[in-house]
Amino acid sequence: MPLETPAMENLSTLTGKYGEEGDQLVFKILNSGDYLKDISPDNAETRADILNQARTLTPHISEKGLRYDLTVPLARYVVMNQHEVSFPFKRYQMQPVWRADRPQKGRYREFWQCDADVLGTDSLLCEADFIRIYHTVFNAIGLKDYEIRINHRKILEAVAEKAHALEHFKTITIIIDKADKIGMDGVSKELSSLGLDENQIKTILSLLDKTAFDLQCLEQLAERLSGITSAEKAIQDLRQLLELTGPDMHQVVFDGSLARGLDYYTGCIFEVVPTSVKMGSISGGGRYDDLTGVFGLHGISGIGISFGIDRIYDVLEELNAFPVDQAIFTNVLFCPMDEAAIAYSIPLANALRVQNIKTEIYPQAAKLKKQLDYANAKNISWALIIGENEMQKDTVMLKNLLTGKQELIDKQDIVNFIS
Amino acid sequence: MPLETPAMENLSTLTGKYGEEGDQLVFKILNSGDYLKDISPDNAETRADILNQARTLTPHISEKGLRYDLTVPLARYVVMNQHEVSFPFKRYQMQPVWRADRPQKGRYREFWQCDADVLGTDSLLCEADFIRIYHTVFNAIGLKDYEIRINHRKILEAVAEKAHALEHFKTITIIIDKADKIGMDGVSKELSSLGLDENQIKTILSLLDKTAFDLQCLEQLAERLSGITSAEKAIQDLRQLLELTGPDMHQVVFDGSLARGLDYYTGCIFEVVPTSVKMGSISGGGRYDDLTGVFGLHGISGIGISFGIDRIYDVLEELNAFPVDQAIFTNVLFCPMDEAAIAYSIPLANALRVQNIKTEIYPQAAKLKKQLDYANAKNISWALIIGENEMQKDTVMLKNLLTGKQELIDKQDIVNFIS
Repeated sequence: MPLETPAMENLSTLTGKYGEEGDQLVFKILNSGDYLKDISPDNAETRADILNQARTLTPHISEKGLRYDLTVPLARYVVMNQHEVSFPFKRYQMQPVWRADRPQKGRYREFWQCDADVLGTDSLLCEADFIRIYHTVFNAIGLKDYEIRINHRKILEAVAEKAHALEHFKTITIIIDKADKIGMDGVSKELSSLGLDENQIKTILSLLDKTAFDLQCLEQLAERLSGITSAEKAIQDLRQLLELTGPDMHQVVFDGSLARGLDYYTGCIFEVVPTSVKMGSISGGGRYDDLTGVFGLHGISGIGISFGIDRIYDVLEELNAFPVDQAIFTNVLFCPMDEAAIAYSIPLANALRVQNIKTEIYPQAAKLKKQLDYANAKNISWALIIGENEMQKDTVMLKNLLTGKQELIDKQDIVNFIS
Repeated sequence: MPLETPAMENLSTLTGKYGEEGDQLVFKILNSGDYLKDISPDNAETRADILNQARTLTPHISEKGLRYDLTVPLARYVVMNQHEVSFPFKRYQMQPVWRADRPQKGRYREFWQCDADVLGTDSLLCEADFIRIYHTVFNAIGLKDYEIRINHRKILEAVAEKAHALEHFKTITIIIDKADKIGMDGVSKELSSLGLDENQIKTILSLLDKTAFDLQCLEQLAERLSGITSAEKAIQDLRQLLELTGPDMHQVVFDGSLARGLDYYTGCIFEVVPTSVKMGSISGGGRYDDLTGVFGLHGISGIGISFGIDRIYDVLEELNAFPVDQAIFTNVLFCPMDEAAIAYSIPLANALRVQNIKTEIYPQAAKLKKQLDYANAKNISWALIIGENEMQKDTVMLKNLLTGKQELIDKQDIVNFIS
């Protein structure tokens, strides 16, 4: 089912969910009215302290912020409506989100996410469903070259365990997550700064390679991580997922270095990257065991993916994949040569509109050249020129603006000629 | 063509456009980072002055606000892109807007507007087009009982002139605009407070009646306002509009008391009110001669209307006009009785999905009762129950959840039985 949530959420809902950096990037709404009136008016010193620093002032003057993603609002919604929703709860949501970031290529202050989530089941069928959805969506929009990267948070845990560094698991994850940006040398350096020795680092790096997602890959993983409990559950999940998706999905690769920065992931994780255009991930997601726990509802396992609509737009733009006629909003322009021709055009235009032919009447009896310039600027294919002569004979002059050819036709026949 | 603009605009774009009350109702975004650092750090006294009052502090700590309507962003867009757009410029825009108002029935903090505007022509064809659009839209959504109220700002001007109160024109307009809320007695009282005498008030009130919009109405208007120049232009406009729309539009009424609060209207004005539900206007609009003037581009006459989507939703809800199956998001539920049945269901479900039949697989081999409860809660019509027996015979058990009837069918035949 579709879901939409408000643009504004209470800051108490938004903060503490996206890490410290995320909190900084939430756009905050100034309270309405005289927002300073409740700041300790009785205690001049406290008041001065509060007023003096943005850090102390903000919580007093701003209670709401703009949606930062669609996942936290979903969790808030499900907890608030837990007695009304049927589990497993499936929803999709397409809305803009806002981040107070420095804008750059692929990074916007306002951008659209399209999320799909299932809450209330730990069935691997959901993971398989999302892989199918990826294929269906990218096929539908004509994006052929992409890679669905997959990993499992418990594999990452097992990697940390095998390197005898389980206590650093979260930090290791965050470092590995940066591999795309800082390269394996960078990862190596940061792991070293964390206090890991050469052997530990070698162990970790040896387990971050990328291979086809198939039975052989899972056997190799099982071998490399044998004896480590968390790996067993992960490999069992991945094996079941492979059974459910079938062996034909060659766009799916197992990527040992895929980590996903966010804390709440606990199972399979995904990322989709276009392979013929330089662009970060255009979708990501994964399984979380306790997303709603932070709002007090525990034990609801779920999984979700998020498409970055603007990046997908950028990729299609770069690939020149938008159909040329995407930007044509009018097919037919009536060109009246005098006032009477405007009234003559109205019923004819309405007859075309009923047939879903996008039709305009040029609203003034301007010079024909001006009207045709307008038609050309808007990539309109057909002009119907109407002057005294045409009206007398119950006709219109039909001009094909692509070929320049024109002919006088009966006004009853317009639809046949154009569609 | 469709247009979307960002949720945030500079406050300098938004303020001063909606009157003083409107400025109060714009949601303001707190600047990012250490937003106090530039407030006169060198002058402690000035700094204290600024910090001490919301009124003085706001301009220092907030530079952006949330979109208050779609009209000002349109004007800003057209002026910024004046060399790229083709005039007459037609766009529609459907987006949420935000107002820091006290929420109540028909009044929301976040609500959707759907606007259509034409800029760059003063042709009455546009007015006629918008009346046609009203009929098309309300017919499409099944709203039958409504009234399109029409008036002309120059008629209102003529009314003020006839009452020898032209210097109070704007204030009189604002007072008349409140007639719906305060009644004619209230209007009378407020006109009296403005300093008008009994005769003047009588003259004004006598010209605010509502009649069918036809030739007779225009003749009466011409008679009542004869000799007043601004009335002539208005009546000429209305006469031409009547010619272009034709005489059959009985939902259109001439309403002398329709005023529209906003300053920028200069010609025909519209309002649509549902007549079988108590609700304010669900759409409004009108012609403006210089909307873009405030951003420096003069001489662009235009006209626009705005649908209040949420109020229209409320009206349809109250009329029980939404189709029952509007809230059905799944037609078919596969009910697997064991793990193998999940895998068995996947290709069958995909075959239905290709036919645009909304299909889910219950993601766990839960008890049948639990699965059917889920189907009922979601108003799903068909359950396909699959156990060992069904799989052995390449069949499914098809259960019609409305009638309770069930039958064993070949798995190849599902589409035929369901669609």
